[in-house]
Amino acid sequence: MNILFIGDIVGRAGRRAVRLFLDKIKKENKVDFIIANGENSAGGFGITKKVAKELVDYGIDFFTMGNHTWDNKDIFKFIDEKDNLIRPLNFPENNPGQGWKTIEINSKKVTIINLIGQVFMQSCDSPYHKFIELYPQIRDSDIILVDFHAEATGEKMAFARAVDGMVTAVIGTHTHVQTNDAQILPQKTAYITDAGLTGAVDSILGMKADKMVQKMKDSLPVRYEVATGEVKLEAVLVKIGNKNNQATAIETINKNNL
Amino acid sequence: MNILFIGDIVGRAGRRAVRLFLDKIKKENKVDFIIANGENSAGGFGITKKVAKELVDYGIDFFTMGNHTWDNKDIFKFIDEKDNLIRPLNFPENNPGQGWKTIEINSKKVTIINLIGQVFMQSCDSPYHKFIELYPQIRDSDIILVDFHAEATGEKMAFARAVDGMVTAVIGTHTHVQTNDAQILPQKTAYITDAGLTGAVDSILGMKADKMVQKMKDSLPVRYEVATGEVKLEAVLVKIGNKNNQATAIETINKNNL
Amino acid sequence: MNILFIGDIVGRAGRRAVRLFLDKIKKENKVDFIIANGENSAGGFGITKKVAKELVDYGIDFFTMGNHTWDNKDIFKFIDEKDNLIRPLNFPENNPGQGWKTIEINSKKVTIINLIGQVFMQSCDSPYHKFIELYPQIRDSDIILVDFHAEATGEKMAFARAVDGMVTAVIGTHTHVQTNDAQILPQKTAYITDAGLTGAVDSILGMKADKMVQKMKDSLPVRYEVATGEVKLEAVLVKIGNKNNQATAIETINKNNL
Amino acid sequence: MNILFIGDIVGRAGRRAVRLFLDKIKKENKVDFIIANGENSAGGFGITKKVAKELVDYGIDFFTMGNHTWDNKDIFKFIDEKDNLIRPLNFPENNPGQGWKTIEINSKKVTIINLIGQVFMQSCDSPYHKFIELYPQIRDSDIILVDFHAEATGEKMAFARAVDGMVTAVIGTHTHVQTNDAQILPQKTAYITDAGLTGAVDSILGMKADKMVQKMKDSLPVRYEVATGEVKLEAVLVKIGNKNNQATAIETINKNNL
Ligand SMILES: [Fe+2]
Ligand SMILES: [Fe+2]
Ligand SMILES: [Fe+2]
Ligand SMILES: [Fe+2]
Ligand SMILES: [Fe+2]
Ligand SMILES: [Fe+2]
Ligand SMILES: [Fe+2]
Ligand SMILES: [Fe+2]
Repeated sequence: MNILFIGDIVGRAGRRAVRLFLDKIKKENKVDFIIANGENSAGGFGITKKVAKELVDYGIDFFTMGNHTWDNKDIFKFIDEKDNLIRPLNFPENNPGQGWKTIEINSKKVTIINLIGQVFMQSCDSPYHKFIELYPQIRDSDIILVDFHAEATGEKMAFARAVDGMVTAVIGTHTHVQTNDAQILPQKTAYITDAGLTGAVDSILGMKADKMVQKMKDSLPVRYEVATGEVKLEAVLVKIGNKNNQATAIETINKNNL
Repeated sequence: MNILFIGDIVGRAGRRAVRLFLDKIKKENKVDFIIANGENSAGGFGITKKVAKELVDYGIDFFTMGNHTWDNKDIFKFIDEKDNLIRPLNFPENNPGQGWKTIEINSKKVTIINLIGQVFMQSCDSPYHKFIELYPQIRDSDIILVDFHAEATGEKMAFARAVDGMVTAVIGTHTHVQTNDAQILPQKTAYITDAGLTGAVDSILGMKADKMVQKMKDSLPVRYEVATGEVKLEAVLVKIGNKNNQATAIETINKNNL
Repeated sequence: MNILFIGDIVGRAGRRAVRLFLDKIKKENKVDFIIANGENSAGGFGITKKVAKELVDYGIDFFTMGNHTWDNKDIFKFIDEKDNLIRPLNFPENNPGQGWKTIEINSKKVTIINLIGQVFMQSCDSPYHKFIELYPQIRDSDIILVDFHAEATGEKMAFARAVDGMVTAVIGTHTHVQTNDAQILPQKTAYITDAGLTGAVDSILGMKADKMVQKMKDSLPVRYEVATGEVKLEAVLVKIGNKNNQATAIETINKNNL
Repeated sequence: MNILFIGDIVGRAGRRAVRLFLDKIKKENKVDFIIANGENSAGGFGITKKVAKELVDYGIDFFTMGNHTWDNKDIFKFIDEKDNLIRPLNFPENNPGQGWKTIEINSKKVTIINLIGQVFMQSCDSPYHKFIELYPQIRDSDIILVDFHAEATGEKMAFARAVDGMVTAVIGTHTHVQTNDAQILPQKTAYITDAGLTGAVDSILGMKADKMVQKMKDSLPVRYEVATGEVKLEAVLVKIGNKNNQATAIETINKNNL
C-alpha cells in the first residue's frame, strides 16, 4: 500500500498546489490513501468546513492538525462530527475532537495518530505517555501512522526512535521546510523530520516574505498574509509491504509550477 | 569560486567523517575554501585547540560556532589568537573572540559572519541590528558569507530575505538535520535553512539515540554521549561566479560510509 | 523628593483605582511626581491617547510601557509627540518612540528609563548593553529611575545589582503581583522586584478569573476581559534625599475599596 | 491547626536560617506541622539524604520539590523510601517518588500535593488534568495542601482559582521572592503566589549576586555559588479551623538576623 502524506497546506496557494499536482502524483505513484496536515489550510490559520470539503474534492482523504488547530473557530462546529480529521491527542483532556482514528483502507485496519511536541510549543501533555496509554487499544492495527507536529528536530527523532518498530511511520510536520532525512529506522519504522510546505514558493513558510521580515526585524504588530504566485506541493510517500505491513520505503515528493 | 560549508560536526564521529570524505568532496567539486560549524566538534560540546587543529589537518579552513561556543572552556585560551574561528556576532558585547573576519581567498576579499537566532535560543542582541551596524565596514568585500545559527525555520528564512542581495550566501546551522530547500533567493543570495549534521548516522543529532530518547521521555538527568558507528558528512557547496561574485548555485552534499 | 511608581494599570478598573485613591496617596505621602506603567491601561492591552489623558487628569505625570506597548494601534499616532511616555529602550532600533527621557522636577534633572527583560519575553537587545551605551549621556542627572519590565525574578535582581549605585531606583513591573522585597541595595539604589497591579481585586492579573482559568486549563481560544468590581492600587514610594539625591527609603503602597 | 510552609531553602545559608529561626516561629505561632520546599537545599541544587535529615532535626516535617528535584543524584537512592518528601505529581509517569502523600496530623487526614507549572518551565503534563485525576482518591481528606511550583504569576493564580474550594491552600513556590498577596480566595482556599526564599539576604535568589550578574550580563559559563552572610527565613502560616477544616487566615512570616 502507498500512503501519501502532504506537508502543511498553507492557505489558498496551498490548496491550489493540491488542485494542480495531486492527481498527477496519485497516478505516478499508485497512491492508495492521502493524508495532509491541514492546520494552516484556511487563510494560513486553522481550517474551515468549506476548505476541508474543497481539499477532499481534490482527493485528500484525511486531515491531521497541530498548534493552529483552533485558530479558525469554524472548527468547533464540525470537529466532533468529522470522521476524517484529528487533532493532537496530547491536547488537554476535554478538548473537542479526537487524537486518533482507526479506519479501513484496502481491507487493512489503519490507525492514524496526531501528536504535538512539548519543546518550544504551547503546553501539552507528554506525547510519550499519551501514546503508551493508547497503544494497547490500537496495537492490532495493520498499519499505524503518526503525524508528530513539533518544532525541535531532536524531539521529533527521539519520539520516532522511542516508537520504532511499534508504528509503521512517524511523519514530522510544523516547520514548513522539508528535511532531507527520509529514512527507514533500525526497527523498520519510516521516518522524516518534516514533510515540508504546500503553498506559495516565494514566501516564508507560505506567508508573504516582506511581512514576516518586518515582524522578525522590528517586532511590531504585522498582519500576516498568505503568499501568492507560483506554488509547490511537498509530501512524503510511504510504501508499505502488503504481507508484513512494514514500511519498505519513504520518499520525498516535490512538485511545483516554476 | 566554490565554497563548501559543512554542517555541525559532532564529536569524534563527525571528525572521522571529515577525515574520510573531505578530500574526495574537494576533488570532485573543485572546492576553494572550506568552512565548518565546529560548535559540537569536541565531544559534542564546544571545541578545543586540539580538535580544531585535527580538523584543519583534514582540510577545514575556517570555523563558525553557535550556542555551544563556550561549552568547552579550552576555547577561552585560544579564541582571541585564532584567525580562523568566529563566534556569533550578536553575543554580548564584551564576549571574547570576534563575530566576523575578512580574509583573502584567491585574491578575493571574503567576509565570513556568524550570527545566532533569538527565537527559542538563549538571549542575544538582534541579528538584524548587528548586521546593519557591521555592514558599512564590510560591504566592499567581494564575497560575504553568513552562518545563521538558529532553531526556527521562519527566523532563518526571514533573515536571509532581509539581507537578500546584500550577501553572497546565508547558510543555516544548528538543527543538525539537513533541509531540502537549497535555493538562490530572488536577489541572488544563496540560501539553505540547515546544512545538516556531520557525525554518526545511527544517532539523534549525532548523539546516542537511547540517551536522547530517555531524556526526552523521562526528563531525568542523562549523560549524553557522542554516537559511534557509520558516519556521514552533510554540507552545501556554494558556487560563486568569478566576475560578478554572485552565487550561481547552491547544492547539498551528502557522503556516508553505509 | 518623593516619587510614586504605580504598578501596571489594567483597564477601566485600574483607571478607576487611580481616580479613587491617587489624590489621597499624594497628600498622605507628599508625592512630588507620579510614574505609572501604562501598558495595560486601555482594555488590558496597550494604551490610547484618550486613556493616557484620563490618567493624566487623575494626576499621573509620566508613563512607562512594556511587552504590551503596541497592542493598541492608537499609540502609533501619538507616541512620537508625547513627552511623558516611554517604551522599552532595548526594543528594536527603528521602533517608534523613545526609551528614556530627562525631565525637570523641582529643579532636579530626572532621567526615567524603560527597559524590558530577555528571559521568557519576546526577543530584544540586551538591557545591559543598552544601559551601558546610554549611561554617559545621562550620568549627570540628579536622579535616575528605571522601570525594568520583566518576568524572571532573577533577571530583575541581577540587573538592579549590576546598576546598583549608578541609578536611584530600579522598579520591576510586568508580573502584576506586588513582591514583598522593597529594599535599598548595598550601593544605595532603591529596588523592588514588582510594584504590583492596579486594577480589579477579584481577578487574575486584572482580567476576569474564569476566562484565565479556562485558557490555562483547556488551551482553547478565550477572549480575555478586564475584571470589574472592587479595585486596588499598588505602588511603591521612593523617597530621595534632597542633598545627595540618594534613595533613603522605598515603601509599598496598597489601597483598595474592599 | 496551624501549618507553616517555608519558601525554597537555598543551600547552607538557608539551612542556617531554619536552624536559627524555626523554633521561635513555632512557639510564636503554635505551629502544628511544617512543610518546606527543599529543591535547593543541598548546595543550591537538589537535596541529599544528609541535608534532609539535618532539616528534619531542625523541625521540618515534610518536603516538597520542584524543577531542581533531580539536580543532586543522591535523591535517587532514597526518594522511594522516604515518606516525608514528594516531587511534582505531573512529572513523567515513570519517574521515581510520588507526587502526593496523605498523612495524619492531630487526628486529621492531611493530603499534601506537589505540582509544577507548564509556563516557562521544562515540559510536563497538565497540572489540571493530574489534579482532577487524583481528586477522587483524596477528596475525603480533612485538609489538602498544594505546593504549586511555577514561574508565571498568572498560571499560579489560575490554578488556585480552578481548585478554589476543593483544597485548603495553594502555596506558590519557585521564584524565590515572596509576594505581597497572601489571601483567602472567594471559595475559602488560602493562597499566595510565592512563599519566598529561605537563604542568604545579600544574594540573588540565594546565590552569590556577582556570579548571577555576570551570567545574565555576559551569557558566559559561570559556576553559581550559594551566598553567605546574614540569612532570612520566608514562609506563610496557614491557619485552619478545627471544625470545618477551612483556612481562616494566611499570613507571611519573615525572620532575619540583620
Ligand atoms: Fe503549520
Ligand atoms: Fe504548526
Ligand atoms: Fe550544533
Ligand atoms: Fe547549536
Ligand atoms: Fe502588564
Ligand atoms: Fe508586561
Ligand atoms: Fe527553588
Ligand atoms: Fe524551582
